[in-house]
Amino acid sequence: MRDAMERMAAHPHHVGSPYDKDNAEWLVAKLKGWGLDAKIENFDVLFPTPNQRLVEMVEPTKFTAKLEEPTVGVDPTSNQHSEQLPVYHAYSIDGEATAPLVFVNYGVPADYEELARMGVSVSGAIVIAKYGASWRGIKPKVAAEHGALACIVYSDPKDDGYFVNDVFPEGPERPRDGAQRGSVMDMPLYPGDPLTPGVGAVPDAKRLPISEAKTLTKIPVIPMSYGDAQPLLAALKGPVVPEAWRGALPITYHVGPGPAKVHMKLKFNWDIKRLYDVIVRIPGSEYPDEWVIRGNHHDGWVNGASDPLSGAVAELEEMRAFSELMKQGWKPKRTIIYAFWDGEEPGLLGSTEWAETHADDLQKHAVVYLNSDGNGRGFLNSQGSHTLENFMNGVMKDIQDPETKLSVWKRSQLAGISRAPADRKRELRTRPDLRIGALGSGSDYTAFIDHLGVASLNLGYGGEGGGGGVYHSIYDDFYWYTHYADTDFVYGRALAQTAGTAVMRLADAELLPFQFSDFSDTVRIYIDELKRLDADQRAQTEELNREIDEGVFAASVDPRKKFVPPSKNPVPPHLNFAPLENGIDALARSAQRYDAARQKASASNVRAVNAKLIESERRMTDAAGLPGRPWFRHMIYAPGFYTGYGVKTIPGVREAIEQKRWQEADQQIQRVGTILIKEADLLDEAAALLK
Amino acid sequence: MRDAMERMAAHPHHVGSPYDKDNAEWLVAKLKGWGLDAKIENFDVLFPTPNQRLVEMVEPTKFTAKLEEPTVGVDPTSNQHSEQLPVYHAYSIDGEATAPLVFVNYGVPADYEELARMGVSVSGAIVIAKYGASWRGIKPKVAAEHGALACIVYSDPKDDGYFVNDVFPEGPERPRDGAQRGSVMDMPLYPGDPLTPGVGAVPDAKRLPISEAKTLTKIPVIPMSYGDAQPLLAALKGPVVPEAWRGALPITYHVGPGPAKVHMKLKFNWDIKRLYDVIVRIPGSEYPDEWVIRGNHHDGWVNGASDPLSGAVAELEEMRAFSELMKQGWKPKRTIIYAFWDGEEPGLLGSTEWAETHADDLQKHAVVYLNSDGNGRGFLNSQGSHTLENFMNGVMKDIQDPETKLSVWKRSQLAGISRAPADRKRELRTRPDLRIGALGSGSDYTAFIDHLGVASLNLGYGGEGGGGGVYHSIYDDFYWYTHYADTDFVYGRALAQTAGTAVMRLADAELLPFQFSDFSDTVRIYIDELKRLDADQRAQTEELNREIDEGVFAASVDPRKKFVPPSKNPVPPHLNFAPLENGIDALARSAQRYDAARQKASASNVRAVNAKLIESERRMTDAAGLPGRPWFRHMIYAPGFYTGYGVKTIPGVREAIEQKRWQEADQQIQRVGTILIKEADLLDEAAALLK
Repeated sequence: MRDAMERMAAHPHHVGSPYDKDNAEWLVAKLKGWGLDAKIENFDVLFPTPNQRLVEMVEPTKFTAKLEEPTVGVDPTSNQHSEQLPVYHAYSIDGEATAPLVFVNYGVPADYEELARMGVSVSGAIVIAKYGASWRGIKPKVAAEHGALACIVYSDPKDDGYFVNDVFPEGPERPRDGAQRGSVMDMPLYPGDPLTPGVGAVPDAKRLPISEAKTLTKIPVIPMSYGDAQPLLAALKGPVVPEAWRGALPITYHVGPGPAKVHMKLKFNWDIKRLYDVIVRIPGSEYPDEWVIRGNHHDGWVNGASDPLSGAVAELEEMRAFSELMKQGWKPKRTIIYAFWDGEEPGLLGSTEWAETHADDLQKHAVVYLNSDGNGRGFLNSQGSHTLENFMNGVMKDIQDPETKLSVWKRSQLAGISRAPADRKRELRTRPDLRIGALGSGSDYTAFIDHLGVASLNLGYGGEGGGGGVYHSIYDDFYWYTHYADTDFVYGRALAQTAGTAVMRLADAELLPFQFSDFSDTVRIYIDELKRLDADQRAQTEELNREIDEGVFAASVDPRKKFVPPSKNPVPPHLNFAPLENGIDALARSAQRYDAARQKASASNVRAVNAKLIESERRMTDAAGLPGRPWFRHMIYAPGFYTGYGVKTIPGVREAIEQKRWQEADQQIQRVGTILIKEADLLDEAAALLK
Repeated sequence: MRDAMERMAAHPHHVGSPYDKDNAEWLVAKLKGWGLDAKIENFDVLFPTPNQRLVEMVEPTKFTAKLEEPTVGVDPTSNQHSEQLPVYHAYSIDGEATAPLVFVNYGVPADYEELARMGVSVSGAIVIAKYGASWRGIKPKVAAEHGALACIVYSDPKDDGYFVNDVFPEGPERPRDGAQRGSVMDMPLYPGDPLTPGVGAVPDAKRLPISEAKTLTKIPVIPMSYGDAQPLLAALKGPVVPEAWRGALPITYHVGPGPAKVHMKLKFNWDIKRLYDVIVRIPGSEYPDEWVIRGNHHDGWVNGASDPLSGAVAELEEMRAFSELMKQGWKPKRTIIYAFWDGEEPGLLGSTEWAETHADDLQKHAVVYLNSDGNGRGFLNSQGSHTLENFMNGVMKDIQDPETKLSVWKRSQLAGISRAPADRKRELRTRPDLRIGALGSGSDYTAFIDHLGVASLNLGYGGEGGGGGVYHSIYDDFYWYTHYADTDFVYGRALAQTAGTAVMRLADAELLPFQFSDFSDTVRIYIDELKRLDADQRAQTEELNREIDEGVFAASVDPRKKFVPPSKNPVPPHLNFAPLENGIDALARSAQRYDAARQKASASNVRAVNAKLIESERRMTDAAGLPGRPWFRHMIYAPGFYTGYGVKTIPGVREAIEQKRWQEADQQIQRVGTILIKEADLLDEAAALLK
């Protein structure tokens, strides 16, 4: 794994770079050398790269942002400047603006509500937001909704610089001039090539003109280092920002607007670039039409050692192990497909275009998709379909944590107990299965689970040692990883063992290891959350209206400070949660029925039962998709429209409530209730088949 | 008030300075000019001033701390360097040490527990602590308990520097080289002159030798600016500090020990200095032996505009108003005593020595002591005896907030609603009286309430505009106050109205306005807190012991980081709370009985009832005092032994539980229970007299 990482991280390997293609070809050769059936699948996608980048302060003093990450002497790949992608945001539109600057904290919707209370508008302004709290692409989106002309996103040292730990190369965190590249494509609308929504970007695909692509930003946006941001922020006046907004720069953070005035000009080369997905197929011996799929991307923003190679080399190690096992006679019952995706960084391009291209086959054949996207030292993070929660717990019990020598499951349970508040410790001690998180977005599982309804898992170790500080910078490289992350690759081995074991068990199980009581237990929690959200919003609105009537704001705010009091809002109505309640009750009963039947299943009927189980995640989707974003079809999990990566569970209902669209909330409750009933029906059919 | 502040803040006026005496004499002349009976009372007290101050880093690089606050051009008094007291801590012992440096966060006991988990000892080290979280004198005390050789206390910009707001002179907060002087006398043991504990430091008092004074520090200690502290902190290595410990300097905060090694040498002039308390007496016309006392100190650390003159000029304004009223024929029924204390800053010297000198008279005659110690814009903060809670609510309803034009009571209620968590808003809307805080220490009420059992109140406006940033620095001066605080003195007028109204009402009431239902309601809350504290400690110990058995620590901590797991502790026993329960039940019944009788009181018997009411706070004291600190005699309120200023209510019980002295806790419960019963008996006698 160390050798593979050193080789693949030796040069920048972003989409369209020579070394991206070179890595793909090296992977194919390597895999073929192990006797595996590996090939490259190509897609042609829109991938803009910078042509012109200018950010300068023109008032009250002159300052031009460097927008360059310098060479670090001890780091041998940090000087490959001619091969590196510059600091930029992919899928920002071209644009130019000169306007007063406003600091908007993390630039999420709640921040704009606070700005409104301060009487500060960003209309006609350039906003500067900190990285963090939401996925970066949300920041220009929300800024544009509020009338901003352009957006800057910088890395505050509070979040991944010297506040956290020593900076590179003395420590793992982001140095003064380090910056975070990244995609700002509006992925909550649809990921993948902006020109081919819903279909594969094969060479002869029908493409939208760029002007009709909906996932480009509405305003120009660029990232910068805190070295570049500090002079801009220090030149702001206006209100001092709320305490929670303050970063770790040695300045007083003000909101503005101005007197700092910024001139920003961005132009991009709007080129079509070729993707190189590496696909390996091991045909199943008994159930060749049931596919277990595993993937990790191989493209990086620059040298990309931690992201993605620490995950990709573990995946490669799984392939090596499988080839060894096959030489010893192992034949998986199901077909195993391993993918090394290209183009994840700009917008999940390689996985999305592949999934869209093969959508019909995948909907018929895909059993599970297992993803990783990097790895580090520490604890196993697993998120995914809760029908696989029980299965993953079984895997975790059989893998050893390489440093504590406990099982990964035991270490996770004990660490959970250590961190949980008092009232949550009991469940960790008594529930047979540890809970896994739900999937939002941000990696290559998205098309599988959200678009196609393929039960998915995302796996990776982490939580110890640095990580955030070099994310998407030139310093995420072999030198950094072997000094500050999983330096001896023991967690690389653990990830290969974890994912490899999961793949083998899924490929070889007679009865697929889906379990539904954990799923129904989890969905019930989501429904309880929705009811509480509705009740809380009602109580908060009533309280706010009451406080407005009482004169609380005029009494509590400093009369010498500008303050725009909120206005009264209609009190949210009580929603009819009965369809969800009836749905979850039915699902819980059927889940229990199936799980009981599963204990004493004989093999006679297993093919028919497995077909139902494969169908179980598809049943959670609806072809019409989520309101306003039909590409997202899963009714239980989705990335939030205003979080980007962060999950919204039962998203149709939750986002309708959050955004105060009450009629839509009632409709979506009905729709999800129906889905739950249908899921229950499916489980009843499967249980009946087992009897 | 503006003129008085300008005059009194024109030069540094600390204890022993020419201008301290000059201000006292000016006050007497002014008061006499208004026809009032004003005089100076002198005390002679130990007051050390610096002779030698050296703090230098000797490894890994050389750096000598400036320990000087520079002149600020626009500020006309900031250049009076020859008159200013240098940056130092009064009552630090002389000493010299050269040792590795350790950063100890705020230097409170919990911080040393975290250091122990990191495997870091301060034994033989010099510690550097941030100002904040406890009174400064606690920091060298706790450091010495843990074996440190010397202590540095610095002002982190997170707490009162650029993190909070722009720094002086552009804004109100502490500039880079600004530092906080202050006393580090062990006041939780006893305040006042260290050489005359319990008796007045009159010129011929019997004095302890300095070597026997118990309230000097055990190790040398000095304050410094963040300008001076930054090179020291930046030179530390060792573990990165926990997130909650990090300040706002642009460095990664490490714990040490070293490699920074510091050499520190402090010597002081251990002189006796003269105090000038200004005492004004207005004899009572009907009840001359019942005294209403009001005070605010006049000495400052340097020019002291905000602290203490913003309060002192309001007090002076009250005197002017009273003299005008007296010219119009007003004669207060009770004797009114106004005090302008000297020597508050070094250790509540002027008020403590006066109270100790006149202890017998005060115990016989004192009705109430009303204190202030500065003033600003915003909300009325009132703390004090809860037998006066109802009375203060009445005063607050009759004073207008000068900026919002609401009554002070209404503004306070509405601001309380605004800030309260959802479950606390209801009480604010429905309880007839707003709650007042309990008194800890840190100002001149201490001897009155804690030592003598005189019902006390502490009043001051604040919460809007700067304040913390120039506290005890050369920049707390007329320029700063008139630019950043109550610039037009409207809150000065409000304080004079508030305290003046309270004094007049207390002086003129037939039946003294004590009320006991609010008091018993409050004491019941304290008792509930104690029961919860006991239960929580038991639950936490049980949980910790269980986690140690489970192996939680080894599983959750990064194996590459040094970590010393905690050891198992005996589970705290259940305490017998019955004496407190019986005491509070009796008190609540008697309070209700008295408060009901009070409604229909006739004047016939009022003198005898008032005697009981004056006795009511004395009954809460016990001549034997608190365990280990007999000077503190109040059984309901005291400053914490490890907080310094912060109050501990029912301190004998609470501190015994906190410090795991279970037998003592049971004894103290018994003792306080008895006090509550005695208080109930007194109220029954008063109620009977009213019938």
